[in-house]
Amino acid sequence: MAGSSVKPTPLLKDELDIVIPTIRNLDFLEMWRPFFEQYHLIIVQDGDPSKIIKVPDGFDYELYNRNDINRILGPKASCISFKDSACRCFGYMVSKKKYIYTIDDDCFVAKNPSGELINALEQHIKNLLSPSTPYFFNTLYDPYREGADFVRGYPFSFREGAPTAVSHGLWLNIPDYDAPTQLVKPRERNTRYVDAVLTVPKGTLFPMCGMNLGFNRELIGPAMYFGLMGDGQPIGRYDDMWAGWCMKVICDHMGWGVKTGLPYIWHSKASNPFVNLKKEYKGIYWQEDLIPFFQSAVLPKECVTVQQCYIELAKQVKEKLGKVDPYFIKLADAMVTWIEAWDELNSSGEKSSKSTSK
Amino acid sequence: MAGSSVKPTPLLKDELDIVIPTIRNLDFLEMWRPFFEQYHLIIVQDGDPSKIIKVPDGFDYELYNRNDINRILGPKASCISFKDSACRCFGYMVSKKKYIYTIDDDCFVAKNPSGELINALEQHIKNLLSPSTPYFFNTLYDPYREGADFVRGYPFSFREGAPTAVSHGLWLNIPDYDAPTQLVKPRERNTRYVDAVLTVPKGTLFPMCGMNLGFNRELIGPAMYFGLMGDGQPIGRYDDMWAGWCMKVICDHMGWGVKTGLPYIWHSKASNPFVNLKKEYKGIYWQEDLIPFFQSAVLPKECVTVQQCYIELAKQVKEKLGKVDPYFIKLADAMVTWIEAWDELNSSGEKSSKSTSK
Repeated sequence: MAGSSVKPTPLLKDELDIVIPTIRNLDFLEMWRPFFEQYHLIIVQDGDPSKIIKVPDGFDYELYNRNDINRILGPKASCISFKDSACRCFGYMVSKKKYIYTIDDDCFVAKNPSGELINALEQHIKNLLSPSTPYFFNTLYDPYREGADFVRGYPFSFREGAPTAVSHGLWLNIPDYDAPTQLVKPRERNTRYVDAVLTVPKGTLFPMCGMNLGFNRELIGPAMYFGLMGDGQPIGRYDDMWAGWCMKVICDHMGWGVKTGLPYIWHSKASNPFVNLKKEYKGIYWQEDLIPFFQSAVLPKECVTVQQCYIELAKQVKEKLGKVDPYFIKLADAMVTWIEAWDELNSSGEKSSKSTSK
Repeated sequence: MAGSSVKPTPLLKDELDIVIPTIRNLDFLEMWRPFFEQYHLIIVQDGDPSKIIKVPDGFDYELYNRNDINRILGPKASCISFKDSACRCFGYMVSKKKYIYTIDDDCFVAKNPSGELINALEQHIKNLLSPSTPYFFNTLYDPYREGADFVRGYPFSFREGAPTAVSHGLWLNIPDYDAPTQLVKPRERNTRYVDAVLTVPKGTLFPMCGMNLGFNRELIGPAMYFGLMGDGQPIGRYDDMWAGWCMKVICDHMGWGVKTGLPYIWHSKASNPFVNLKKEYKGIYWQEDLIPFFQSAVLPKECVTVQQCYIELAKQVKEKLGKVDPYFIKLADAMVTWIEAWDELNSSGEKSSKSTSK
C-alpha cells in the first residue's frame, strides 16, 4: 500500500527529477525532506531574477532564473511564460531523466485516513510503472493495485493494458477550484480521501492540475508545454489545463494511458480569488470553444512521434482557434518554438515514439 | 453522507420496486429489513415453480414463478431466461414504478470504514436523483456530492450535467471476478472501500454487474434486458454484461449518464468457479468480438425512444454478431420480443424518450 512509512522511495534514484516553480524561499521542502532528499531538484525561479531563493541545506538542486532561461534558449525563450508558474515546463526541457515529478511550493505532505504521512512520490512512481486501462473501464479501479484485479466482463485482450504516460495526483484541504467557485464556496475544504487510482478513458478529457503531477518524460515530455500565460498574456491559470488537453489528445493517439487519483498532497493556501478571476475570465469564456476543439481533434496516422503530434496540433490550433482570438495564433507559434527548443536541448536524436514505449 | 444510520430511506416510498431473482428462501432479507421493509418487492422465482419460496414476515411482495411468466407473457415468455438469474428482468417489466433496485440473494449489508451499516438503497437513490457528468471527467469525482464540486478547468456549460439513468454499486468481500480469475486468485477479497461515485464517461464501456444495481426504469427500463442465458442456451453469466453494453450505447445516444462506485454491499459467497467456467467460456471468447461491436455501434438520429434504439441495436446485433455465432441471431430476435412484451405490459403509451428526461 502507498505511503505507509517515511522510508525514502527505493525506486528510480537516477531516473527522476523534481521540478518546482517558485518565487520564494523553499521552506516547504523541509517537510518533504525524507521523500525528496535523494532526488535531484530543478527549481525554476519565476519573476525578478535578482532575488535570491533559499533552498534548505542538503538538497541537490539546480536553479534557473529568467536570465538563465534567456541565455540557454536565446530568442526561443519567448515560449516560456514569465510571472506565471507555467514557467515550470522549462524544467521539463532541461531535465535528462526519464520521469518528472512537479509540485507547487504551497503543497505539503498529507496524511492518509490512518494518520500516516503519504509518500506522494512513491505512489506516482507506482502509477507510472504499472500499465493503464484506457480502452475499457474497470469498476474496481486500477486492476494492477494489490488486492484488485479486472472484474468479470473485462475483455481479456485488454488486460495487458497500455503504457502509463501521466500520473495526476489530488489535493486534500484546499481543492483546485476556479475563481467563481472559490468566490461562491470560500470555506469548502476537500476532506474526502478517495483510495483509488483510475485511468481516464480514451476519448475523455479531464482538467489536469500541475500542482501534484508525475509523468514519463521519455514518453510524453514534448507535449507537456504549459503555454503562454502571465506577463504580457491575456490569460493565466490555464497553463496546466492547456498541457493536459494537448497531452490527452496525444496519449489517446499514441496508445498511452493517463491515471488520476492517489496520491494526495496537502494544499495549504487558496490563492486570491479576485486575482484569479482576472487571470481566468477569458479562459472561462474561451474554454467553451477549446473543449469541443480538443474533443474533436484527430491526429493523422503519419504522426508517430510526440513531436510530430504536437506540431500537427499547433497547426490545428492556429487554423481553428485562431478565429476565437488572435492569442491562439501566438500560442500556436509558441507551441512550435517549444518543440524546436526541446529538440535542441534534447538532441541525442531520441524522440518519444510508439516504439519507445516501455 | 451515505449510510450513516439505520433510518429507512425517506425518499421515493411509492416510486421504487426492489427486484430479487432467487431459487431459495429469502432469509437474507432479515438483514435488509430496516432498509427494504417500506418498499414493495418483486421476487422472480427461478427454476422449479413447484418449490415454495419463503419470504420473511412483514415484507410487501409479489412473487412470479415460471408458470406466472408463461401465463403473463404467453409465447413471448421465450425471451425470459430460465435457470439463470437473467430472469430478473421480468421483474423490471411488470413493475410500474419509476425506479428499480435489484440485488442478489447472497448480498448482505456492508459496513463503511467507520463500522456503520451502509444503506445501499439510499445511496443509489442519491446517485439516481443527482445528475451525471458523461462529457468531461471531474477529478474530484461526483461534483454533486456534499463537500465536492467541479474543479478548475471544468467547462461551465457542462456543469448542469445529464440525467442519471443507472447507478452501479460495488461489492466488498467477494469481488465479481470471472471464472479464470476466481481459479487463479481463490482467496482474493475486496477490502478496499473507495469513497467515490463517478460517471462512466460517454463513449466508454464498463462491465455492469447486476448484483447491486439501481436504475431509472422510466428512462432506461426497456434497455435493461438481461438476454438469453441458462437453460437451453450456450452461455451464462453474461446477462448483466449484455444489458450493460446495450444500455450504455443507448444512454450515450440519449444523453443520459451512468454512475458507478458507492454503495457497497457485502457479497458473501463466491459461486463455483468450475461451474462458472462452463457458463462463461463461450462468452470470454465471443466477448472479443462483442466489445468492438458495441464500441463502434452508432444509433441513427431517428431513434428518439429507448424502444427505437433497442430495436435498431437488435438489428445490428443480428447483422454483425450473427456471423460470430447463430446464438446472436436468436438473441437479436429475443431482444425484439422483449420490447414487444415490454410495450404490451406498459401500454399506457408512455415511452422513454429524450423529452421525458428529468
